[in-house]
Amino acid sequence: MPDPDDNSTRTRLLDAAAEMFYAEGVSVGVDALCRTAGVSKRSMYQLFGSKDELLAASLERSVPGYLAALLPTPETPADPVEQMLHVFRQLEGVVADPQFRGCPYVGVATEVKAPEHPVRVVARRFHDQLTEFFRDAALRAGATDPGLLSQQLTIVHDGTTARAVVQGGPTPGLALATASALLFAGGVIHDDART
Amino acid sequence: MPDPDDNSTRTRLLDAAAEMFYAEGVSVGVDALCRTAGVSKRSMYQLFGSKDELLAASLERSVPGYLAALLPTPETPADPVEQMLHVFRQLEGVVADPQFRGCPYVGVATEVKAPEHPVRVVARRFHDQLTEFFRDAALRAGATDPGLLSQQLTIVHDGTTARAVVQGGPTPGLALATASALLFAGGVIHDDART
Repeated sequence: MPDPDDNSTRTRLLDAAAEMFYAEGVSVGVDALCRTAGVSKRSMYQLFGSKDELLAASLERSVPGYLAALLPTPETPADPVEQMLHVFRQLEGVVADPQFRGCPYVGVATEVKAPEHPVRVVARRFHDQLTEFFRDAALRAGATDPGLLSQQLTIVHDGTTARAVVQGGPTPGLALATASALLFAGGVIHDDART
Repeated sequence: MPDPDDNSTRTRLLDAAAEMFYAEGVSVGVDALCRTAGVSKRSMYQLFGSKDELLAASLERSVPGYLAALLPTPETPADPVEQMLHVFRQLEGVVADPQFRGCPYVGVATEVKAPEHPVRVVARRFHDQLTEFFRDAALRAGATDPGLLSQQLTIVHDGTTARAVVQGGPTPGLALATASALLFAGGVIHDDART
């Protein structure tokens, strides 16, 4: 039996949970999760207490990686408009992946109906982090209303991921064009700078 | 035993399915569905063949009502801009309902992973109907690119419903402001007409 304090047991469970919850939905059973992770149910309950806590922990662990795939890197130009548009260029790549099954945070927030469930808290925190990034950049870019623009751009993120799922395919150019239109309407870019 | 050809048996199953799939997710069991509907499993299988077909039928039955809640009525001004904005005014009311748990079509498309599953087809058809409404109105309103604008407005629909779920509350004014910004950027309204 694996040692429940063993980091690799924990990691194997988090890996299995991340993959299976995303690919199959939150109704995946504990038996299947433990079988895939190669971990006993007893170890799972010792480490996480419940399936819900395992789900929340695996979702939380994924946030930095998901955000890193979208947010500017040191190579991205420092210009705040470029930094905001970077997110939507990246997003089009994310949704074009054949394994893409929707934004994991919106998906789980929709599937888990209790608003105070730990995974709902993780989803809200992800959302707030993304909006906060947009707000800071919009402020630096001189937006008329940075708070409004940041919420609008978050809507474009969520709506683009929804579209890719519903239509079952990528959204070439659409996220970028929509974000550009909102940056234009928000007083940040001029018409001739629209991509 | 109820007569499987009986319309009321069918209706009771569709009602129970609509309510339970929306409130609890697509993993609701056949036993629970049939118990709530007061219908035997045998009748359910005779009428629908499978739980998936029942899910698809209940989702499909809901589309006209969901669209009717959003789309213009005979009382809405005929002006195409007003007709498009009407959708977002209505949407803010839809997402403010404490029972709101996300767009049912996006939610199911995310939960059901197989792209050719019958419910995915229903979700896509709903999406296309909404986009088609926007495209016609955008064309009448003289949009620079009615096809693009109609997809952008559909993104605002989906993103607003996602936001209401993730944040666990209404989105006062946000859907309308975002749609107005896109109508402005799309050459349909002028700055001073933005609401």
